[in-house]
Amino acid sequence: MSTRNKNIPCLITIFGATGDLSHRKLFPSLFHLYQQQNLSEHFAIIGIGRRDLKNDDFRIQVKSSIQAHVQDTTHLDEFMDHVFYHKHDVNDEASYQSLLAVSQQLDQKFELQGNRLFYLAMAPKFFGIISDYLKSSGLTDVEGFKRLVIEKPFGNDLASAEELNNQIRRSFEEKEIYRIDHYLGKDMVQNIEVLRFANAMFEPLWNNKFISNIQVTSSEKLGVEDRGGYYETSGALKDMVQNHMLQMVALLAMEPPISLKSEDIRSEKVKVLKSLRKLEPSEVNQNFVRGQYDQGKIDDQDVIAYREEDRVDEQSNTPTFVSGKLTIDNFRWAGVPFYIRTGKRMKDKSIQVVVEFKEVPLNLYYETDNKLESNLLVINIQPNEGVSLHLNAKKNVQSIDTKPVQLSYAMSAQDKMNTVDAYENLLFDILNGDPTNFTHWEELKSTWKFVDTIQNEWDKTEPDFPNYEAGTNGPLDSDLLLSRDGFHWWDDIQ
Amino acid sequence: MSTRNKNIPCLITIFGATGDLSHRKLFPSLFHLYQQQNLSEHFAIIGIGRRDLKNDDFRIQVKSSIQAHVQDTTHLDEFMDHVFYHKHDVNDEASYQSLLAVSQQLDQKFELQGNRLFYLAMAPKFFGIISDYLKSSGLTDVEGFKRLVIEKPFGNDLASAEELNNQIRRSFEEKEIYRIDHYLGKDMVQNIEVLRFANAMFEPLWNNKFISNIQVTSSEKLGVEDRGGYYETSGALKDMVQNHMLQMVALLAMEPPISLKSEDIRSEKVKVLKSLRKLEPSEVNQNFVRGQYDQGKIDDQDVIAYREEDRVDEQSNTPTFVSGKLTIDNFRWAGVPFYIRTGKRMKDKSIQVVVEFKEVPLNLYYETDNKLESNLLVINIQPNEGVSLHLNAKKNVQSIDTKPVQLSYAMSAQDKMNTVDAYENLLFDILNGDPTNFTHWEELKSTWKFVDTIQNEWDKTEPDFPNYEAGTNGPLDSDLLLSRDGFHWWDDIQ
Repeated sequence: MSTRNKNIPCLITIFGATGDLSHRKLFPSLFHLYQQQNLSEHFAIIGIGRRDLKNDDFRIQVKSSIQAHVQDTTHLDEFMDHVFYHKHDVNDEASYQSLLAVSQQLDQKFELQGNRLFYLAMAPKFFGIISDYLKSSGLTDVEGFKRLVIEKPFGNDLASAEELNNQIRRSFEEKEIYRIDHYLGKDMVQNIEVLRFANAMFEPLWNNKFISNIQVTSSEKLGVEDRGGYYETSGALKDMVQNHMLQMVALLAMEPPISLKSEDIRSEKVKVLKSLRKLEPSEVNQNFVRGQYDQGKIDDQDVIAYREEDRVDEQSNTPTFVSGKLTIDNFRWAGVPFYIRTGKRMKDKSIQVVVEFKEVPLNLYYETDNKLESNLLVINIQPNEGVSLHLNAKKNVQSIDTKPVQLSYAMSAQDKMNTVDAYENLLFDILNGDPTNFTHWEELKSTWKFVDTIQNEWDKTEPDFPNYEAGTNGPLDSDLLLSRDGFHWWDDIQ
Repeated sequence: MSTRNKNIPCLITIFGATGDLSHRKLFPSLFHLYQQQNLSEHFAIIGIGRRDLKNDDFRIQVKSSIQAHVQDTTHLDEFMDHVFYHKHDVNDEASYQSLLAVSQQLDQKFELQGNRLFYLAMAPKFFGIISDYLKSSGLTDVEGFKRLVIEKPFGNDLASAEELNNQIRRSFEEKEIYRIDHYLGKDMVQNIEVLRFANAMFEPLWNNKFISNIQVTSSEKLGVEDRGGYYETSGALKDMVQNHMLQMVALLAMEPPISLKSEDIRSEKVKVLKSLRKLEPSEVNQNFVRGQYDQGKIDDQDVIAYREEDRVDEQSNTPTFVSGKLTIDNFRWAGVPFYIRTGKRMKDKSIQVVVEFKEVPLNLYYETDNKLESNLLVINIQPNEGVSLHLNAKKNVQSIDTKPVQLSYAMSAQDKMNTVDAYENLLFDILNGDPTNFTHWEELKSTWKFVDTIQNEWDKTEPDFPNYEAGTNGPLDSDLLLSRDGFHWWDDIQ
């Protein structure tokens, strides 16, 4: 991990600057970085779009987006002086030439030392052409650094991911490519590593001798909303499991890295992903459950089924829910299942890790009325942020029974104020040239391989969709996945 | 541990029933047990005193004591119907004869099945004569059980403790004797055992591989108050270390018992006390620090020195503070110091255990600005009751530094309402015939032996008293005791 530097001069070029991501995440995050003095005066942002917009009009849009997402807008006007618009056609060479001219101009004006960051907030089909033109136009002939930031999906399977990768690698080296997995920017996801390796208490327990299973859940109450078109080509397996869920598993399962350098951490993560037991096609349905939401109730409101959503096939077999059991074949984890679960239109909105410890070897308290609860370490990632430990204590004075108690730490509002979003963390990392919290091609290869096996098997048979009511925790098979092993999902805990 | 029974019929005879302990602790606790239906209708209490009091007058006194200590006094009048007074001269045979007559009468009236509990809330010098008369008068010829409850001090050294023990053993067997150590009645002290053995997380860490040291503090802000006369014959070593402090160390250090039966737990505690490394006289002052408070400020109020207190010798060498380093010579604890500390007129009123874990073997976060904090498990016994765990988490978004966070569980007001005092727990144990939370003669022998060595060495030299200012954490030597080992007292944490 590099030293953190607050004064990285840089020209930030955002393709897709009028889009949703830019307005909800990128501009508010960049402004907050500026406000917190984590971005020096030496920066400029070029927002790129197809539309014919004047600088001033674009600034008005950006300003109102920032005002909608950041409470304290002190210094907003100063920030806006660094923001520019460039009308652009991604297929037209001339557009890149005029972008080059503007870039050189801003480089001089703001003393950016020739550092350029290209953020592609666009559909992946444009990645290849844009990066090719960036090179041919001379935009990547920089005096400083050049970095490319791309958003998921990174392909639709291993083959298409490889193709996509080859395209961008014609203009950028692997170490110049920052593949955003915004889960890795979340404070509490980053805290998984810190909890494990900066505390003497956990590492001795963090293995198959003391842990019985680990559960990672990312559930949403929302349905597919207006993303039906995209979602039909993706689904929960590719949209969530291939990236976010497997990344969290890697952080939870990895061996202690020899240093905090990005390559040392990544090498441990890649080892975990390579240790995932490959599923034979015949094993897929024993270990993975797919689901699609039916009509139901969310917060007492009737909601429609997935197949009734806008731009969704009436006979769609796209999964909106996936749960699975992962087996990690190494010394540390042999015998410890990692259960993952993600879905839309579920009961709660929550991203949560539950580490369930084994029972005490000789339970002295078994003779009593109540069964002893398992010890749990719960890492709350969203919407609550914090850690809690579920222990047993003495129930009360005149009884030897125990009761579960919860030691908890919730991230304070003060801490949360320090950052507006995961994107702020990630943008700061990119400016610092720290690729730790981004997905390396090696990781991508492993996760696609793993997910392809599942997808290929699922493609062979028609699922019995819809198979879970909106507002529930997914299909029954998802519960059976754990109960067969003698476990259950830890729902409704914090 | 016996099954808990709520309906133990019993005649409870309290010697010293007009005294402070009876009014502040025993009657309120007995009433609360009754109110919580942990004491059946089949009970009667005979309060014994020297004064000539009518039943009704005694009841008025008891009633007002209870009202002063228990908020909800529902059913107080029904309870009072079970309370009687008996004027008594402990040296007069006739007194016992009339007590016998009253006892038999109450036994019949309340159907007490001949169960008798004798509570000696008296100075130890009376223990022998009372227990002798209880036997010779026939009061201990019971059809049910007979039990003797005594309060500290159990002697002044091993020899006098043996003498005292021989006296009471003429009338009661060891298993009929309940020596009160009220620390063992505290909920959070009882929770030490539960935390350790009902949670899978702690036992694997509970040894010299992962714990660097354990600190047990019992500090008071109060001075000697009106107990100067007693305290001059006792002092912090005998009043606190010999009993409470060493009992807590035994609970913290003991091996897991093979069952929760009293004898199995005790046998493990005795093993710890026997494993305490015996100090050579020459080692005493390296490992134990004595102190006596000087004038100072408590809560911004000037307070006087110990030597200025009422009924205290102007040249008194009685320690009001002791801290010490204990070494437990067994496989589990070799190399892990247990530090104990107790004193009057200290900075805070607190009973607290701090378990300090070793540092992470390879601290990946060392390169950064701040040193990593040790992991701590803090057991707050009084005045706060609860457990907290001090961990390191990520400081914030744009930094790799860590910050300490605290996972904490505080006993709820609801839980606390269940009991008015440690004495309530202990009285319930006695009625149930459960000696787990009382001091066995075997424990007493070991602790007196250990403490005698220290006292004998201290008797040889004049201390440089007073040596700590009231309102501080004791003499400088107490800090040096730890700093020599590379540790420090964890003050001001919860």
